[in-house]
Amino acid sequence: MATTKRHDVKDLALASEGVRRIEWADRQMPVLAAIRERFENEQPLAGYRISACLHVTTETANLARTLKAGGADVVLCASNPLSTQDDVAAALVDEYDTAVFAIKGEDNDTYYAHIEAAVDHKPQLTMDDGADVIGVLHSARREQLGDIIAVNEAKTKHLFDNRYGTGQSTIDGIIRATNVLLAGKRFVVAGYGWVGRGVASRARGMGSHVIITEVDPMRALEASMDGYEVLTMEKAASVGDIFVTATGDKSVIRKEHIKTMKDGAILANTGHFNVEIDIPGLRSLATDTREARAFVEEFTMAGGHRIYLIADGRLVNLSAAEGHPALVMDMSFANQALSAEYAIQNAAELERKVYPVPEEIDKEIARLKLETMGVDIDTLTEEQEKYLASWDEGT
Amino acid sequence: MATTKRHDVKDLALASEGVRRIEWADRQMPVLAAIRERFENEQPLAGYRISACLHVTTETANLARTLKAGGADVVLCASNPLSTQDDVAAALVDEYDTAVFAIKGEDNDTYYAHIEAAVDHKPQLTMDDGADVIGVLHSARREQLGDIIAVNEAKTKHLFDNRYGTGQSTIDGIIRATNVLLAGKRFVVAGYGWVGRGVASRARGMGSHVIITEVDPMRALEASMDGYEVLTMEKAASVGDIFVTATGDKSVIRKEHIKTMKDGAILANTGHFNVEIDIPGLRSLATDTREARAFVEEFTMAGGHRIYLIADGRLVNLSAAEGHPALVMDMSFANQALSAEYAIQNAAELERKVYPVPEEIDKEIARLKLETMGVDIDTLTEEQEKYLASWDEGT
Amino acid sequence: MATTKRHDVKDLALASEGVRRIEWADRQMPVLAAIRERFENEQPLAGYRISACLHVTTETANLARTLKAGGADVVLCASNPLSTQDDVAAALVDEYDTAVFAIKGEDNDTYYAHIEAAVDHKPQLTMDDGADVIGVLHSARREQLGDIIAVNEAKTKHLFDNRYGTGQSTIDGIIRATNVLLAGKRFVVAGYGWVGRGVASRARGMGSHVIITEVDPMRALEASMDGYEVLTMEKAASVGDIFVTATGDKSVIRKEHIKTMKDGAILANTGHFNVEIDIPGLRSLATDTREARAFVEEFTMAGGHRIYLIADGRLVNLSAAEGHPALVMDMSFANQALSAEYAIQNAAELERKVYPVPEEIDKEIARLKLETMGVDIDTLTEEQEKYLASWDEGT
Amino acid sequence: MATTKRHDVKDLALASEGVRRIEWADRQMPVLAAIRERFENEQPLAGYRISACLHVTTETANLARTLKAGGADVVLCASNPLSTQDDVAAALVDEYDTAVFAIKGEDNDTYYAHIEAAVDHKPQLTMDDGADVIGVLHSARREQLGDIIAVNEAKTKHLFDNRYGTGQSTIDGIIRATNVLLAGKRFVVAGYGWVGRGVASRARGMGSHVIITEVDPMRALEASMDGYEVLTMEKAASVGDIFVTATGDKSVIRKEHIKTMKDGAILANTGHFNVEIDIPGLRSLATDTREARAFVEEFTMAGGHRIYLIADGRLVNLSAAEGHPALVMDMSFANQALSAEYAIQNAAELERKVYPVPEEIDKEIARLKLETMGVDIDTLTEEQEKYLASWDEGT
Repeated sequence: MATTKRHDVKDLALASEGVRRIEWADRQMPVLAAIRERFENEQPLAGYRISACLHVTTETANLARTLKAGGADVVLCASNPLSTQDDVAAALVDEYDTAVFAIKGEDNDTYYAHIEAAVDHKPQLTMDDGADVIGVLHSARREQLGDIIAVNEAKTKHLFDNRYGTGQSTIDGIIRATNVLLAGKRFVVAGYGWVGRGVASRARGMGSHVIITEVDPMRALEASMDGYEVLTMEKAASVGDIFVTATGDKSVIRKEHIKTMKDGAILANTGHFNVEIDIPGLRSLATDTREARAFVEEFTMAGGHRIYLIADGRLVNLSAAEGHPALVMDMSFANQALSAEYAIQNAAELERKVYPVPEEIDKEIARLKLETMGVDIDTLTEEQEKYLASWDEGT
Repeated sequence: MATTKRHDVKDLALASEGVRRIEWADRQMPVLAAIRERFENEQPLAGYRISACLHVTTETANLARTLKAGGADVVLCASNPLSTQDDVAAALVDEYDTAVFAIKGEDNDTYYAHIEAAVDHKPQLTMDDGADVIGVLHSARREQLGDIIAVNEAKTKHLFDNRYGTGQSTIDGIIRATNVLLAGKRFVVAGYGWVGRGVASRARGMGSHVIITEVDPMRALEASMDGYEVLTMEKAASVGDIFVTATGDKSVIRKEHIKTMKDGAILANTGHFNVEIDIPGLRSLATDTREARAFVEEFTMAGGHRIYLIADGRLVNLSAAEGHPALVMDMSFANQALSAEYAIQNAAELERKVYPVPEEIDKEIARLKLETMGVDIDTLTEEQEKYLASWDEGT
Repeated sequence: MATTKRHDVKDLALASEGVRRIEWADRQMPVLAAIRERFENEQPLAGYRISACLHVTTETANLARTLKAGGADVVLCASNPLSTQDDVAAALVDEYDTAVFAIKGEDNDTYYAHIEAAVDHKPQLTMDDGADVIGVLHSARREQLGDIIAVNEAKTKHLFDNRYGTGQSTIDGIIRATNVLLAGKRFVVAGYGWVGRGVASRARGMGSHVIITEVDPMRALEASMDGYEVLTMEKAASVGDIFVTATGDKSVIRKEHIKTMKDGAILANTGHFNVEIDIPGLRSLATDTREARAFVEEFTMAGGHRIYLIADGRLVNLSAAEGHPALVMDMSFANQALSAEYAIQNAAELERKVYPVPEEIDKEIARLKLETMGVDIDTLTEEQEKYLASWDEGT
Repeated sequence: MATTKRHDVKDLALASEGVRRIEWADRQMPVLAAIRERFENEQPLAGYRISACLHVTTETANLARTLKAGGADVVLCASNPLSTQDDVAAALVDEYDTAVFAIKGEDNDTYYAHIEAAVDHKPQLTMDDGADVIGVLHSARREQLGDIIAVNEAKTKHLFDNRYGTGQSTIDGIIRATNVLLAGKRFVVAGYGWVGRGVASRARGMGSHVIITEVDPMRALEASMDGYEVLTMEKAASVGDIFVTATGDKSVIRKEHIKTMKDGAILANTGHFNVEIDIPGLRSLATDTREARAFVEEFTMAGGHRIYLIADGRLVNLSAAEGHPALVMDMSFANQALSAEYAIQNAAELERKVYPVPEEIDKEIARLKLETMGVDIDTLTEEQEKYLASWDEGT
């Protein structure tokens, strides 16, 4: 297919492999596929410009296809320099006629240039994983803000994407990068939000002794009641074998912690930016560094023991593995697609700001998903509806 | 001590055993104890009338003592006819000078007469587990409503009380009543709210193969992703060994389900009222009934097989065991105490209605609790505070 | 029924309650019931004297009934002074015509006098939970040894009875005695044999952070790989909230450990004798003791903090709860019954010593049990049998 | 280094990458490294010929280095055609001076020619993962049998290698091959031996609803008591999403099962040979096949639904992932090395046959491993030793 769209991708020759992989993912995204079919008929997004700043993966490709099927004019840039799958980027440009600006391993300047390209699209609607597009709009392009609706933060995202998706894919990334046995390891998870508890649950499921660090007392108490050991990072640092940050904050693992770590300690991040681990601090402590395995940098400390950092502290599940399984993204992206439709249908009434996804959309997605899983659930009888309603009335 | 308070309890001679048991619970409720000490000095509830309609247990006794220490005039009635511990009721009247209206096993008329006694107290503040007091006020005493603040529904209640407390105590109640081995049993939990997931988690922890039934697709999907089998009650009925309802709804297990159950099936409820299982329906199917063990009624069906109902379908954890462990209630009741204080301090500003507990109170409780558990957690560095704040500002 | 059997039980008037409870257990012991029916017809034990030294519980009663149905002349004494259920002892004497020597809480002299009574029975076959009868025979009655076959140590006992039965019932005993919340507790299990791993697994299932102590490196490594924290008792002592010994050894928890324990620490034993915790040592450290709750003794230490000991260090699951669930005992006791039959059938060939249970009996029991659970399993096809056989031949 | 050893590997140019990877593994195999150091000094295997038929991986390379350090003359061939890592094979030949006969993906003739090469080495000692070398010796070279000692089947292998190693690496292989989300999946494991229970435990840990099929009633009962659903393959076939065979038998998943499977069902094997799934049968049912992803073959059935087979039914953990983590193999291979030493030291007394590993070797390995993990355990006091000994004496 002739490619007329503007784009900046690594190599269009990778497109055919990308197509094959996008199709594999599509078979595991039946909810999004059903929505795409309806969108093709109804064209609910016709005439709208959408800028999406997301991880450029096979699943995102199927979202882009769905938005496009609905009539939207889509520009896609990467929300993370390391997570781009170049064959997928090529396939989107070459086969699915979508404008893509993303190259795996791009430097900082290129990364921001690509975000600029997404902003230049003058979107009426943004989808923004890391809020970078929104960030640019807020800081440098305030004049455009008035036109934009940003859709984000579906409940399903917290519940399913972060918890189940990141849980599995973080473990997957660590194992692929290091091939260490998790059974018997002291596995430290910093942060007990949805991501943290997903990782903790899966690490425990693989036989690790999981240790949680937290700053929020409610979450710390919850972690404790869930059977995890709760320690300060200061104490965890000297006993842990593997450390995963999942906080959204910065400098969670600092020089003072790294100094006390054991020989062979492994560090990874699955939160947001690669600032959760103080990497400059780590580097300053090292007398020598080298690549020990693909995605694993070895830091030799003054005392001769070694610390390992995975994927330069970037998202371990996207950098060292394939990111969320398609099935998880099916639900998240079905949400994004329906939310985009909802935002446009209600454009007149909605103020221009970030909107929560209406609960009914969440329920609809869940219902569709259970159907594709072959799981039947109960429905309320008339008597039950009445009983519940009388309660609501009564109190 | 001379007892001048109005009351209706079984036997004041039981008071000394009640005192011993209340003290045992008190040693496991250090957060509430700390609050009680402060209340004694500060008298924040002085001059206020409080009606509490709660399970009359050792832990509730320590809440009542705390409210009284703060200067309140407290009347306590039972929120459930079967859960009253008569020695505790006696001790509260005789030793702690509190008005109590509660007798274990009281009939329906007495139950409601006791609630009326709580309403007659003309409370400015109510604490109401099952909303019965509120129900009476709404239906029959609307003229009093204008004066009342009801405090309820702390986040800690959902998170800790329902999930961890009910989880353990429901399992405890079933084992005490039946002494069945849970390992290898098909354990059906109706409802995957906080209570249901607490029970499911503990049943799995005891080696059961847990099956969830739900009417809400989001919760059903979550149960499935948590690794449980999700079935309709129609399908679960014919394979389950043990059934526990945790829905808050009525007629969740109905005649059509009971008819297909296996010989030896055990039914229990840990939701709210004893209407979750259709007990009249069960009774109509039986050719014979007898008490098989304390708290266990045996129903012989037409075909000769037997169904067992625990505690007449009333809350199994309170009826057949001791209800929530003191440690869980420490947090819930510390919340109730602090919330009462908050409500009174802000009485001028607050409308007269049911109030959520301010999040800061939840955090304070959690902090106190972790302290008593000997668990240290991290605190944000100045740099981290700034980083998080800049995010909030930026977006 | 007129009672002509020799016996020493607490009160024959308790018999009717015992009968009701024995029948409840019997309904959950379908495998043993099937064997009893066959024994009645075939009388395989006719003319044999059996001395059983076992916990005198409802399940043991059903074993005794089965042995008697097979024609044996049975004498039963208690293997543990605290575990005897007096109503069951009465029922066995009064209703099931069995000689019983067991009184709950009997002193040491009576305990050994009762064992002597079992030895006086001049058994040809012994069943001996704690090896006390065998002990007496070895030390004081060596002349009788030549006649005796002892049956014990079925694989099913290790796998099911110890692991699943003791796991649940130990947790049950601790909760009944103390009503503490297990979620969030540091739960120390001394010993990672079958009993220890059963307890550890269930404590984890209730939300505890489980710590294992061991002396065997293989087991310690296994515990670690199963995700538990492994510590020395010295380190565990100062962090644990609950301690359970499951070693079969003595003085596992010693004065030096008790001295470092936290206020409120709870000690229990589920191994064998009440020597696993150094109770005289504990007592010598205390400035004061009292009963805090039924089965819970409170020791006030010099520093003012308190340690709690459950059931005087005797088996917590039998002393503070009801011992193994009937379903577990169904399998263990079906094994004992079939093993007795096997021993007698092969009496000519067998030497007089302790015999392992033939594996075929284990398989037969498992097959019967799965049948009663409604669980179908696969059978080897002819092709598969051949394939496996060719392997065995080939190597 | 000049390579004089006989060999048949893919490409010696791959050696340097192999060296780097072997060294990474070596850092996670501290026990084997300690043994290697001692072997270098003591030369306990000097003058012995060893033929090893093992998966040619980085970990095996470190075993070969250790045997060689001890003075042995080692020939290595592949125990599985798909598991060979060509860079490792090259490194062994080029850098570590070991004779290797193994090429990834070699055809059947080459595979057996390579085994012949190992037999031609006229080993006095064999190490044989799949018993193929032994098989050849038994069938075609019986004259050599008299000289050979085969060492195998360490307890540690069952406990750690199969359970913990295969558990994690099987899950890893499935995720790498398919990137499916395991949470919420019905995951069928055929066989509940050590491998099967390892896989089952990890699949449950990732949120799957695990279903076990078995032919052995004891194991089936154990699976059931561990909380798994136990079904016949006939019933499991129609509900499962993912199927893993772990039986050591053949035709466990047959045409009659495949016919009833759902669209999208995934099949994998982690037992021994690729005969556990009837692949010719699967192929005969398909109207079309293609590669859906690397290692994943898609079979389109007559009805249009698709079945996916991973790695042609060969060991999924070795074919689609990296096999056992080094840490697991550290222990298994430390065992092999010490067992070889033991066999040679006792060559005079030992008959020529397959020998179990002495328990003391297992304990020694476990002790060394715990040491490298930084885990301290208790030791028996003198009093305890005496107590335990008196027990042993007494009974």
